[in-house]
Amino acid sequence: MCQLLGMNCNIPTDICFSFEGFCERGGKTDEHQDGWGIAFFEGKGCRLFLDAKPSTVSPIAELVKRYPIHSTHVIAHIRKATKGEIKLENCHPFRRELWGRYWVFAHNGDLLTFEPNNYQFYQAVGTTDSEQAFCFILDQLRQEFPHDKPPLKKLYYTLNKITLSLANHGIFNYLLSDGESFFAHCSTNLHYIIRQAPFGAAHLIDQDVTVDFKALTRESDRVAIIATTPLTDNEIWTALQPNQLIAFQDGLPITIEH
Amino acid sequence: MCQLLGMNCNIPTDICFSFEGFCERGGKTDEHQDGWGIAFFEGKGCRLFLDAKPSTVSPIAELVKRYPIHSTHVIAHIRKATKGEIKLENCHPFRRELWGRYWVFAHNGDLLTFEPNNYQFYQAVGTTDSEQAFCFILDQLRQEFPHDKPPLKKLYYTLNKITLSLANHGIFNYLLSDGESFFAHCSTNLHYIIRQAPFGAAHLIDQDVTVDFKALTRESDRVAIIATTPLTDNEIWTALQPNQLIAFQDGLPITIEH
Repeated sequence: MCQLLGMNCNIPTDICFSFEGFCERGGKTDEHQDGWGIAFFEGKGCRLFLDAKPSTVSPIAELVKRYPIHSTHVIAHIRKATKGEIKLENCHPFRRELWGRYWVFAHNGDLLTFEPNNYQFYQAVGTTDSEQAFCFILDQLRQEFPHDKPPLKKLYYTLNKITLSLANHGIFNYLLSDGESFFAHCSTNLHYIIRQAPFGAAHLIDQDVTVDFKALTRESDRVAIIATTPLTDNEIWTALQPNQLIAFQDGLPITIEH
Repeated sequence: MCQLLGMNCNIPTDICFSFEGFCERGGKTDEHQDGWGIAFFEGKGCRLFLDAKPSTVSPIAELVKRYPIHSTHVIAHIRKATKGEIKLENCHPFRRELWGRYWVFAHNGDLLTFEPNNYQFYQAVGTTDSEQAFCFILDQLRQEFPHDKPPLKKLYYTLNKITLSLANHGIFNYLLSDGESFFAHCSTNLHYIIRQAPFGAAHLIDQDVTVDFKALTRESDRVAIIATTPLTDNEIWTALQPNQLIAFQDGLPITIEH
């Protein structure tokens, strides 16, 4: 299995604190040492750092921990290989272009009975079921909306339908974003926390590090952190429900009306 | 305009020496300070580092200079913005997937009269004519070979035909690779050097740095470095001819027979 970390905010924010705790799980406090990756959106642009080395020893992870990259949409992943060798092309997040935007996807779980058919537009480069699922999602979205990105409500319903069909094949916790929309799907295990005023201090579980967000934020800031399991031990995290697909916007889960 | 740097070798090699000299042109010895990027293939996997900051001050460029990433196919670019703002999404190299492989592209020049039509599969995310040309190339290749990557000879001829049609619109020096094939096209300005036994010492033009390759290589190693203008002042570089498209393999330009 793997672990997921995501961030969605109303202003560009760095993820250094959360990423530091998360990285410890890539070989120190947990066993997810078969590669890692992180994608930062900056407007429509996207930076993607990947490494097949464990996040605890990767010089690139060290850079990401120390160099504050400010972003409103971030997706990170640490890998415990199940299907697909330990190789760069099997590291999440994966990235493709759809509707003139980059889409980024990371998955935690296994889709044991998923037998991908011939894809029309997108093809996996590596050998993970995760990348195949991502290609399947984008293919289906593109067939449904061939030209332009639909409004959020339409996108949500279509994505939810595609997701349910995939989730039938196994465990399908994932994060998906194009730097404008941000989706989190829970199959078995995914948590989130909203940090907003009044800000307090947070203490990592995986390392003895505390940050006082009050000193680093403005009153109007709002940040959602999404992670497989909580990253801090002095805050209350919310567990997503099985089969729940949440869209985050400006650091908040939003309700999609029927 | 911009500058290009590429590497193709018969064994995974680091590009630290060449990249160090190249980076100096991103604000110190030359004016290409509107962002930079570098892509390293490792098997089918691909690492892509991008930054809208000048390569001379970017912490990510500093990492790439200091951390030897070994690769057989590398494409790098420093940008002097002409068309398209200074933004992350306008930094080269660009990357897309075709035939289940990542393709990476960087361009030096301007395609002033190129008016892209509706694309079928690939759409630009940023606003450069370069990314539009890349999408056009991939679209045309995909229409010609919808399912699988063709043999090199077929690919070369089709790419050459597409390239000529684009080069009519302006200046079109480019590097293109999928980690298996490596193409360099010269419209006005592109040079290469083959380093192989007997190896000697090389001295950078843009910085007072010398490397003795004899001490760092094995007899069988062979490396082609391709750059807009020569990077060293004590070696003989070969200029590509206008409208020349060269395929490199295992560190050598290869002849495609008619």
